[in-house]
Amino acid sequence: MGVTVLRLGHRHYRDQRLTTHVALTARALGAEKVILSGEKDEKIIGSVKDIAKRWGGDFEVEYEKNYRRIITNFHGVKVHLTMYGLRVQDKMKDIRGEKDVLLVLGSEKVPGDVYHMVDYNIAVGSQPHSEVAALAVFLHEYFRGKELEKVFGGAKIKVRPHECGKSFFTS
Amino acid sequence: MGVTVLRLGHRHYRDQRLTTHVALTARALGAEKVILSGEKDEKIIGSVKDIAKRWGGDFEVEYEKNYRRIITNFHGVKVHLTMYGLRVQDKMKDIRGEKDVLLVLGSEKVPGDVYHMVDYNIAVGSQPHSEVAALAVFLHEYFRGKELEKVFGGAKIKVRPHECGKSFFTS
Repeated sequence: MGVTVLRLGHRHYRDQRLTTHVALTARALGAEKVILSGEKDEKIIGSVKDIAKRWGGDFEVEYEKNYRRIITNFHGVKVHLTMYGLRVQDKMKDIRGEKDVLLVLGSEKVPGDVYHMVDYNIAVGSQPHSEVAALAVFLHEYFRGKELEKVFGGAKIKVRPHECGKSFFTS
Repeated sequence: MGVTVLRLGHRHYRDQRLTTHVALTARALGAEKVILSGEKDEKIIGSVKDIAKRWGGDFEVEYEKNYRRIITNFHGVKVHLTMYGLRVQDKMKDIRGEKDVLLVLGSEKVPGDVYHMVDYNIAVGSQPHSEVAALAVFLHEYFRGKELEKVFGGAKIKVRPHECGKSFFTS
């Protein structure tokens, strides 16, 4: 089943671009699905679905207000990314063996019980930075770089890697 | 001298949080300096400097309106991160040998001449996602994961990695 990213506590306007970046990073770096929680934002859901459709692959986008239900009912391993957690470089060898991963990502403030609902609290560097960066490094480590080789089937638009400038295929 | 990150085209309000995430990710994942360009935003500069001071290390934050001058005058290798570039997994072995790297990161729209001013246009996945994610994966690859072991000297506040919950040292 792969990796599902659960984005907690989205707030309209303030988090709009960051939540979009979370969702697109999840898709680009090998996750199967993003579930958005917090305030419902049809604009983000629509724009990520639109990108997923044009750029290919089977990425799913869902909204669920009750994020605790998602965490509780998830049958694989549950990982919360937080700067307060154990070091990703120490724990990844255990997590990498798991086939189904729920990656929980907070926005500004994560309720205390979330730390107890998961199997791992994991830090990508014990410094303040970005949930987008933490997600990216986690996925890159989890997939050992193979996520960058992923083929997005049925794409209407595709980049042709190029030394200089922009080059596309379209269909 | 290490890695300097040049963030192009910052726009007040719209890019505030993403530019902050770019700067903090640069610091947390081993860069030495961020240079912000576009609209000058004292609030971001102040808040990143404040975090750098409290959390330790020697990270520098500067503003420069004329980003072309920064690119032209930089003496090391110049890398522009763009989804249209050559694949990071193919080119990193060449770039990793370089000791001084200027990493150029756009926001929405990067002027065409930037593609020609750099030594490499590099893609972290040829899919639309996030400059924060691209920066994170690039730095993680460039430093081969050793950036996560970096010691931030003189910190007033430090996280003690923990299985569950939040734990600090302060001095």
